[in-house]
Amino acid sequence: MRVAILAHEKFPDRAKTALGVLRYADYEAVAVLDRENPGRRVNEFVPDVQDAPIVSGMDDIEPEAVDALLIGIAPIGGGFDESWREDVRTALESGCDVISGLHYFLAEDEEFADLAAEHGCELRDVRKPPADLTVAEGVAGDVDAEVITTVGTDCSVGKMTVTMELAREAREAGYDVGVIPTGQTGIMIEGWGNPIDRVVSDFTAGAVEEMITEVGDDHDYLLVEGQGSIVHPAYSAVTCGILHGSMPDGLLLCHDAGREAIHGYESFPLPSIPTYVDLYEELSAPVSGADVVAGALNTADLEDDAAAREAVDAYAAELDAPATDVIRFDAADLFEAIVE
Amino acid sequence: MRVAILAHEKFPDRAKTALGVLRYADYEAVAVLDRENPGRRVNEFVPDVQDAPIVSGMDDIEPEAVDALLIGIAPIGGGFDESWREDVRTALESGCDVISGLHYFLAEDEEFADLAAEHGCELRDVRKPPADLTVAEGVAGDVDAEVITTVGTDCSVGKMTVTMELAREAREAGYDVGVIPTGQTGIMIEGWGNPIDRVVSDFTAGAVEEMITEVGDDHDYLLVEGQGSIVHPAYSAVTCGILHGSMPDGLLLCHDAGREAIHGYESFPLPSIPTYVDLYEELSAPVSGADVVAGALNTADLEDDAAAREAVDAYAAELDAPATDVIRFDAADLFEAIVE
Repeated sequence: MRVAILAHEKFPDRAKTALGVLRYADYEAVAVLDRENPGRRVNEFVPDVQDAPIVSGMDDIEPEAVDALLIGIAPIGGGFDESWREDVRTALESGCDVISGLHYFLAEDEEFADLAAEHGCELRDVRKPPADLTVAEGVAGDVDAEVITTVGTDCSVGKMTVTMELAREAREAGYDVGVIPTGQTGIMIEGWGNPIDRVVSDFTAGAVEEMITEVGDDHDYLLVEGQGSIVHPAYSAVTCGILHGSMPDGLLLCHDAGREAIHGYESFPLPSIPTYVDLYEELSAPVSGADVVAGALNTADLEDDAAAREAVDAYAAELDAPATDVIRFDAADLFEAIVE
Repeated sequence: MRVAILAHEKFPDRAKTALGVLRYADYEAVAVLDRENPGRRVNEFVPDVQDAPIVSGMDDIEPEAVDALLIGIAPIGGGFDESWREDVRTALESGCDVISGLHYFLAEDEEFADLAAEHGCELRDVRKPPADLTVAEGVAGDVDAEVITTVGTDCSVGKMTVTMELAREAREAGYDVGVIPTGQTGIMIEGWGNPIDRVVSDFTAGAVEEMITEVGDDHDYLLVEGQGSIVHPAYSAVTCGILHGSMPDGLLLCHDAGREAIHGYESFPLPSIPTYVDLYEELSAPVSGADVVAGALNTADLEDDAAAREAVDAYAAELDAPATDVIRFDAADLFEAIVE
């Protein structure tokens, strides 16, 4: 599928979804839309992802060159920015589908719905949960695959990136790995999945279980994208539902080097790493009995590889398990250490 | 408010909502609708709740004697039983409001919506969350009231009953106690509240926080109705969201004497009581640092008071905290032990 990725005024640093798609998705990126940097290229800003030209808007792309416009950014609150309307309109008028992970559902926008119907294209709101979700039966543990769930010390510590990077490198090393996407970026990258943070709370575990049972007999390993943190004042419900709904065999604890308090909730200091390990393991014990088998440390803010290596080693010692930074160092080695 | 309570073919043993309302709500019960037992009275079946005549249907009640029809039972799945339609229709035609905690929303039923509009009455679906809920800010701990949250070893161990009984007896003993209702029965009894199990998972803690901040400065104590259990394979997300969203000062652990496995998930044995205490306390620690300050044991299945007393004493020893059966014994004493 050939996609254009909308990332106006936020590319690359505040365009997590756009970057995730460029880095991990199996799409051909025809262009990135950023009205601040037309004429430049993705690789001028980010060298290690799929390259593409940056253009001002959909008008600058040949209509027949694109299959879908993908909304690659989200304002706080997940609303729709009216300055994007012209691009979405142009896309629909040229028969392009539009894929969005916003809380604002494009299919419920009257103009977009009418245009999509008129031009025979699809509005895919990946954050809208399917209507047939229900409560978990407690059977995710029955699948053939070994299930590894990423958990974290906080939001935005890299759980999605770790999941995707580990899956990619493990696949390249010959392992048969499936990914269970639980957030909008993961869902866009993989092309399927349930947006767990938008599911009715009673169905949180069930929505994860449904995905695991759907693909769990088709792979040797499943990597489950985690969300939030088990001690997050706002999002712990989502984390807990994924932990129990996925019934993992092992846990991979993700952390951001130097993070000391919960992001956006700075009056809540993070517990120690061993406290997280105990909490996740003790909470998992009665349902699927998973241990923390590895760690992933985000060292993007550390100066050089030497400092990062030192931080990773200290993290591994605290976990008493192998650890790495999956972007800076080798992810395949970590996967091998987990499964061997 | 004068209510008729629909409980066809399920009164009293499978009519948890009807019984909760008869026991705790401030409504005048004009009648219970049960087509299996017309002509009998509530107190013939349950002696210690508000009495009322049992009738076959709404046709057997004077229209002007009732303000609302309350749906007091729920089939598995929370659907609407078509055999109740005639009663709801009769109620609306005589100008009665209808209050329902079903997953099936009466306000979205075309016939009922039309009748309600025509006769100027209200369809109150208490399980439908308000549209303006959002994520928690982590501020429930700032209210003046001391917050006690009920937690449990499983579903259906008596968290709602414990909350209501404790609130009633504490109020009678002169304490200023508010209740935070989180489920449909609690909401019907108290006349307000958010149905936490139907809230978007991202907003679980936020929906609890919103209630606490709304009334938390108006009372000396708040009792938060808990849901599920922190190790429930399906519902732990709801439990975790209430635990962190309510930011309690103390926890009250509810358990059913003799329960050994998770109800409906019998392959999952319950952990030991001390394990639950550790889990709830360790999970609460980074957010509000609550300890388990008391226990409530449901001894309804035990033969006599002597056996119940023995079980309660053993439970208190395991908790290392005061405990009782709030229905069989004295709830006010327990409340006093918690707050003194």
